[in-house]
Amino acid sequence: MNIIFLVFAFLSSYTFHIVSSATDFCVADLSLPKNPSGHYPCKAETKVTVNDFVFSGLVEGKPVAPFNSGLTAATVANLPGLNGLDIAAARVDIGVNGTVPIHSHPDASELLIIVEGEVTVGFITPTKAYVKTVKPGDVIVIPKGLLHFVINSGSRKAVTFGALSSSSPGVHIHDFLLFGNDLPTSIVAKTTLLDESQITKLKAKFGGKA
Amino acid sequence: MNIIFLVFAFLSSYTFHIVSSATDFCVADLSLPKNPSGHYPCKAETKVTVNDFVFSGLVEGKPVAPFNSGLTAATVANLPGLNGLDIAAARVDIGVNGTVPIHSHPDASELLIIVEGEVTVGFITPTKAYVKTVKPGDVIVIPKGLLHFVINSGSRKAVTFGALSSSSPGVHIHDFLLFGNDLPTSIVAKTTLLDESQITKLKAKFGGKA
Amino acid sequence: MNIIFLVFAFLSSYTFHIVSSATDFCVADLSLPKNPSGHYPCKAETKVTVNDFVFSGLVEGKPVAPFNSGLTAATVANLPGLNGLDIAAARVDIGVNGTVPIHSHPDASELLIIVEGEVTVGFITPTKAYVKTVKPGDVIVIPKGLLHFVINSGSRKAVTFGALSSSSPGVHIHDFLLFGNDLPTSIVAKTTLLDESQITKLKAKFGGKA
Amino acid sequence: MNIIFLVFAFLSSYTFHIVSSATDFCVADLSLPKNPSGHYPCKAETKVTVNDFVFSGLVEGKPVAPFNSGLTAATVANLPGLNGLDIAAARVDIGVNGTVPIHSHPDASELLIIVEGEVTVGFITPTKAYVKTVKPGDVIVIPKGLLHFVINSGSRKAVTFGALSSSSPGVHIHDFLLFGNDLPTSIVAKTTLLDESQITKLKAKFGGKA
Amino acid sequence: MNIIFLVFAFLSSYTFHIVSSATDFCVADLSLPKNPSGHYPCKAETKVTVNDFVFSGLVEGKPVAPFNSGLTAATVANLPGLNGLDIAAARVDIGVNGTVPIHSHPDASELLIIVEGEVTVGFITPTKAYVKTVKPGDVIVIPKGLLHFVINSGSRKAVTFGALSSSSPGVHIHDFLLFGNDLPTSIVAKTTLLDESQITKLKAKFGGKA
Amino acid sequence: MNIIFLVFAFLSSYTFHIVSSATDFCVADLSLPKNPSGHYPCKAETKVTVNDFVFSGLVEGKPVAPFNSGLTAATVANLPGLNGLDIAAARVDIGVNGTVPIHSHPDASELLIIVEGEVTVGFITPTKAYVKTVKPGDVIVIPKGLLHFVINSGSRKAVTFGALSSSSPGVHIHDFLLFGNDLPTSIVAKTTLLDESQITKLKAKFGGKA
Repeated sequence: MNIIFLVFAFLSSYTFHIVSSATDFCVADLSLPKNPSGHYPCKAETKVTVNDFVFSGLVEGKPVAPFNSGLTAATVANLPGLNGLDIAAARVDIGVNGTVPIHSHPDASELLIIVEGEVTVGFITPTKAYVKTVKPGDVIVIPKGLLHFVINSGSRKAVTFGALSSSSPGVHIHDFLLFGNDLPTSIVAKTTLLDESQITKLKAKFGGKA
Repeated sequence: MNIIFLVFAFLSSYTFHIVSSATDFCVADLSLPKNPSGHYPCKAETKVTVNDFVFSGLVEGKPVAPFNSGLTAATVANLPGLNGLDIAAARVDIGVNGTVPIHSHPDASELLIIVEGEVTVGFITPTKAYVKTVKPGDVIVIPKGLLHFVINSGSRKAVTFGALSSSSPGVHIHDFLLFGNDLPTSIVAKTTLLDESQITKLKAKFGGKA
Repeated sequence: MNIIFLVFAFLSSYTFHIVSSATDFCVADLSLPKNPSGHYPCKAETKVTVNDFVFSGLVEGKPVAPFNSGLTAATVANLPGLNGLDIAAARVDIGVNGTVPIHSHPDASELLIIVEGEVTVGFITPTKAYVKTVKPGDVIVIPKGLLHFVINSGSRKAVTFGALSSSSPGVHIHDFLLFGNDLPTSIVAKTTLLDESQITKLKAKFGGKA
Repeated sequence: MNIIFLVFAFLSSYTFHIVSSATDFCVADLSLPKNPSGHYPCKAETKVTVNDFVFSGLVEGKPVAPFNSGLTAATVANLPGLNGLDIAAARVDIGVNGTVPIHSHPDASELLIIVEGEVTVGFITPTKAYVKTVKPGDVIVIPKGLLHFVINSGSRKAVTFGALSSSSPGVHIHDFLLFGNDLPTSIVAKTTLLDESQITKLKAKFGGKA
Repeated sequence: MNIIFLVFAFLSSYTFHIVSSATDFCVADLSLPKNPSGHYPCKAETKVTVNDFVFSGLVEGKPVAPFNSGLTAATVANLPGLNGLDIAAARVDIGVNGTVPIHSHPDASELLIIVEGEVTVGFITPTKAYVKTVKPGDVIVIPKGLLHFVINSGSRKAVTFGALSSSSPGVHIHDFLLFGNDLPTSIVAKTTLLDESQITKLKAKFGGKA
Repeated sequence: MNIIFLVFAFLSSYTFHIVSSATDFCVADLSLPKNPSGHYPCKAETKVTVNDFVFSGLVEGKPVAPFNSGLTAATVANLPGLNGLDIAAARVDIGVNGTVPIHSHPDASELLIIVEGEVTVGFITPTKAYVKTVKPGDVIVIPKGLLHFVINSGSRKAVTFGALSSSSPGVHIHDFLLFGNDLPTSIVAKTTLLDESQITKLKAKFGGKA
């Protein structure tokens, strides 16, 4: 009895500074402004439950027409326990002949785990394109910031999980950056040497204004 | 013709400093000594191929007796392209009634993706245990450094993928730290208050010396 | 006269951006939420005094029964000037036959300075236990995240100072993590292979619920 | 039509977490308290315009008497888009016989680009002084934290641009630290071995109190 | 005399660990392999001279045909004293009607100082393009990882200096990534929706193979 | 028996990547070149012993004449287990009327623990000097990079321990930087406004050349 009491006294003197969880975890208070690192201030520990560390929607995403692929992701926005932990996950389903279009994650590396089907993955550096066809049991890493794509090169639907090294990874899709905004066609042409007719055609597809 | 030539001239003046890939990736030269961050110096780019970014053995691990679970992992040791990217992956298969024993990753958070079956995952802070039963479609994050465990709480085999926020995550299994080395039984007893008989029994199981 | 005036003009043009102390120090505003790094936003410089950088209670802690050791610490919680500086200090007094039980600091390395008496310090990696008996004039470092303990192995009281590489170091005491919460005995048993009777006994000592 | 719609659906499922710009940039909300890194929380993206990324006053600074040099700087204080990006810039004009007095940037390296004139730049380590006369077309780097100075060693006005590796670089001018505050003359004398008469003389110049 | 001797004794006891310059600077030994951060191990201090901190070629670059712009840069490759300091500089000259084509620096923010002429600078996020026309006295920052371009929008040559927040900034030029390697035209088409004829045309310009 | 064997099999599959200690610690191989962070590559684990984590000379340093204070330090140079852990320790003894002269640690904060006697500690920012008299039981923190000093303001010898937030903290002593090298007297005068006679006097004391 005495012992329990004293042990607790010991604990509280020893660890008076750990009543806040901040050194063990920092669940995002999504209502406060972010910091430059992309992290949020911590929610009060008294409001934290185990559900802050769980996301239940990493299921097959609805396939989208031109690319015939679907995506869902668990990031700090729907899994606030990820805050500050520099990790996130995604599920990518790619239909037959489908693709994940060329894109990059400026602040995250990606480790792609192949679960079903066969896909061809490629990433590009200024000096070379690295391309590999992978299948279940394989994992392939795409270093941070590199343009990459995934093509379903098999005969059936492909299922993959992606692990990302950021809790709020950005996604820069080539087509949306170039053709999905109001950057004038003439400027896109001048700075990429793409033909204006090509730009106009893709702006129509991706919602950009001329 | 002229244009191509000049463009290349432009590229080479513009980017003379990118002939080395070091800012795009840094494949581990595993033959050189590590740095305190756990990273290796970069392999020469001329020796890098796409295969440095692929690991083909993320398959079901052989189940091990007392815990009835098996594990395989893709870390910088077998996937040298992970070097410096702060990410790794594991596949954990847990048989019926099986478990992943209490352990921690001192330098990595873990995001566990449930693919088949049902598991109960828990992690422990100095003030509370957080426990949740999860199933396919769920992901659960275990913040860096916290003791945690996984129990197959369903009626069939469970399959999970783990993403880790380090390319060479350490694994500190409670039983091996306490009972798997030559730390004298008397010291373990004195500093944990476990009974010596209990320690002796577990040292026998985990290969420790009295 | 003119010179002073102009020099000040110079200073103010030169350094208009340094009127805030934020690049020189950042005293914690403990009333605001922490960030994932465990740091607090900065208190307004006008409210900062030299006392924010001083703590006057690093004295002998009251010895606690089962372990016969006492501890006091200077962390950001009582020394807000430590905020963001990645350092803290503790004083640990260990009575004859006393011990600091097995614990870890998930986010801090510790450098232990022996001032009086003789202690035996040990830390454990997955492959080995490192143990050393040290005395005044000795310092020993315990790398971040490793389980460690201190035993008074001399014939009189021991006094030590610990420097820690975090301004809010967490303290994970083995016994409290395993036996001081409401994690069911059956789960602890299943994931550690400890006997249930042993767990029940220690839960009684450390305040855990069955 | 369908295609555009679906592509947008794809974008929004793909990138639901990027509606906030925090991973692309984090313009400072200068009204909120800083963090220990010297960074500010992010301004809401809806309030961000391109003007947050532009500063229009990097012009010649007014020369100040004793040193005959003038300085303007673009830091997070007047260019809030710099927040979190670890870069800033300055323009330094040094008249004939002018100088930038000995100072350091405790948290920033400086890369000095010579545009007009000729200057002699020096920095000091505990073991050596590194000094070099440079002219237009030259750049010289001063490693973080080192005391350094610039002297106009040419026959006409010198113009230089400085790039700094912090968005809010501190400026510690030797003379102001030692002679510009109320640190008693006796303490300055005792801890520097400067003569009291010298200290008194410079305190008068730099606004310090005896 | 005695005093000097003793002071030196003091210095050497005080600072026995600073005989190596590693904490003051770390000049790159370019002959050794890089680390994942893109930094090199330090050259022995005895071989370091002030010239390791100076680069004398930040002059106008030769204008290159299709873009009519020229570039020179001071990075760790030609200014080894930059190693580990996270800063570099470039000079960009853009002829009338010239442009710096769309590119990104995956690991560096850029602060552009306008010295002569008038340029229009733009950068693109997934949600918006930010474009501004700037002139001498203006600086504009392009956050790390964002696609950006510069167009000479004035009536005469433009001269700018760029500061970059990396000592070995990568340069990813859109056209070279997409059209300058051996990535098959069919893959580029499938993952960008660009027409194959357009791709073929640009591969011819930028040296890619079909 | 079987169980032990299988458990080991489990361990070795589970942890095949932890045979190297690199994620648990990284003892410095002092014979290899440092990295920009000031850290050394790791010594092979097979050569590591507990003695790499212990230094036995943190005793009273020999008092040095003009300042009447003595210092010893435990840094990576004599305690290689500190490598990468961002912590070091020093013992400072200050005789009656003694002082630790004005200096800074460009890369380390310092936490000073007062053990015996009474000292007056001060540090200086561009806007203010912070000074406090402290005694046993007190700790005072000096933020990274700030000029600071310690004066024995009591009537007997003072003993203090300093914890530093770097494993190889630099020490920049004001007098040695300004008066202990071959920087010409005229340059020191011009860039500090100190009188030449004062500089000459102190150069004689601190070993500088005119």
